[in-house]
Amino acid sequence: MEFSKYKKINDYSYSLGAFPTLELLKNKNEYVLKVYIHSSFKNKEVINEIYHLVNKEKIEITSSNKIFNILSNDKENVYIIGIFKKYETNLDINEEHVLLDNPSNMGNLGTMIRSSLGFDFKNIAIILPGVDIFDPKVIRSSMGSIFSVNIEYFSSLEEYKKKYNNHDIYSFMLQTENYLDEYKFNNLTNRYSTLAFGNEATGLNYDLYKDLNPIKIYISPKIDSLNITNAMTIALYEFNKQKRKK
Amino acid sequence: MEFSKYKKINDYSYSLGAFPTLELLKNKNEYVLKVYIHSSFKNKEVINEIYHLVNKEKIEITSSNKIFNILSNDKENVYIIGIFKKYETNLDINEEHVLLDNPSNMGNLGTMIRSSLGFDFKNIAIILPGVDIFDPKVIRSSMGSIFSVNIEYFSSLEEYKKKYNNHDIYSFMLQTENYLDEYKFNNLTNRYSTLAFGNEATGLNYDLYKDLNPIKIYISPKIDSLNITNAMTIALYEFNKQKRKK
Repeated sequence: MEFSKYKKINDYSYSLGAFPTLELLKNKNEYVLKVYIHSSFKNKEVINEIYHLVNKEKIEITSSNKIFNILSNDKENVYIIGIFKKYETNLDINEEHVLLDNPSNMGNLGTMIRSSLGFDFKNIAIILPGVDIFDPKVIRSSMGSIFSVNIEYFSSLEEYKKKYNNHDIYSFMLQTENYLDEYKFNNLTNRYSTLAFGNEATGLNYDLYKDLNPIKIYISPKIDSLNITNAMTIALYEFNKQKRKK
Repeated sequence: MEFSKYKKINDYSYSLGAFPTLELLKNKNEYVLKVYIHSSFKNKEVINEIYHLVNKEKIEITSSNKIFNILSNDKENVYIIGIFKKYETNLDINEEHVLLDNPSNMGNLGTMIRSSLGFDFKNIAIILPGVDIFDPKVIRSSMGSIFSVNIEYFSSLEEYKKKYNNHDIYSFMLQTENYLDEYKFNNLTNRYSTLAFGNEATGLNYDLYKDLNPIKIYISPKIDSLNITNAMTIALYEFNKQKRKK
């Protein structure tokens, strides 16, 4: 099988670099199609770990730069590539969720996935439209953490609310006077929390989210807003802190 | 005078886009050399504000794409450019500081400047080596907030400590058991705080910073570290919150 440069329509994608590829092998091993190791890659510990994690017949060590040139670009310095079949996941109904409404920047999405996992949110709802989660740019900026979370797409907020109606949604937006640093999240048995964040440029749709526990982060009037990944990470930090102190 | 594509060695730089250029005009007006307005730019409110803020003879409205093609690239959709003479600033000795040791990514640096201003840190020390703060990529990702903060370069941590010896340094690193969410920052009269963050890839040098109040942010063992801009923004949020609640 010949693998070509990423297209959304392909049924496979790939991780570029040793670290994201090891995360792929550890967490989504059953979907791995092939691992390419560049013959100039000499880190024996990593190579041994790859052999330990995946069937030998799926591993190809190559001194040809061809596949590396096709799938990555020179300045990325990639020596390991993991090819995998795309898969679908559903969210765990009895866990906290992150909800991203129309995320439009691949680097940001990857960083947000990494932060989510960092604060123990392993379930991410994406309301469409939104960038393709399996684009190698998303995978790379997630540092492979994408392979440890569940991600589910929804065509609308309504569809999400219907399916996960045991969740209370908390909506991060600027148009409210409820400040995060004085906010107390619910603590009810059999209810779970969903922290919702909007698009990089436009934020959450006010009319759709205004009655869903709006919260804002205090910032100086000298700036318009925080970068979305920073705002989201602060929110997850504060939620996680309250939860651990219960 | 002809302006050419950015070089570190030039004594001028430029802001690309209406928003960062307005920030330049509002905050560093005395260094503005020229403002270019593309003739297809029709936002009268912005144009009036530019005329209100800067001498007419410094403004050139042009239907030629030349200067826009030279200084920006097509996909950025830039219709306003502000050219300014580079300037030096010193930190305010009686204010809190952020210290960045060897920041190496321009986009991250811009985002960190924006977050700093958002949490009322208007003074940023950079320990060299570090990327050029006046590179248009830094200016753009700072959304122009760079024009509202003081930035001072130091060749070493020692040089910084000697000059600003009324500051207590708090060092964000992974190699400590002091967690931010249980941390109490000092509250001494005549002492100020400096929050220190390391390079994207390597963090702070342990030997240099280990005795300077090391602090870490709790994260799940499932990820190695947070993205540096996210980690820094959480730290500034928590510090700012404690300060406002005093």
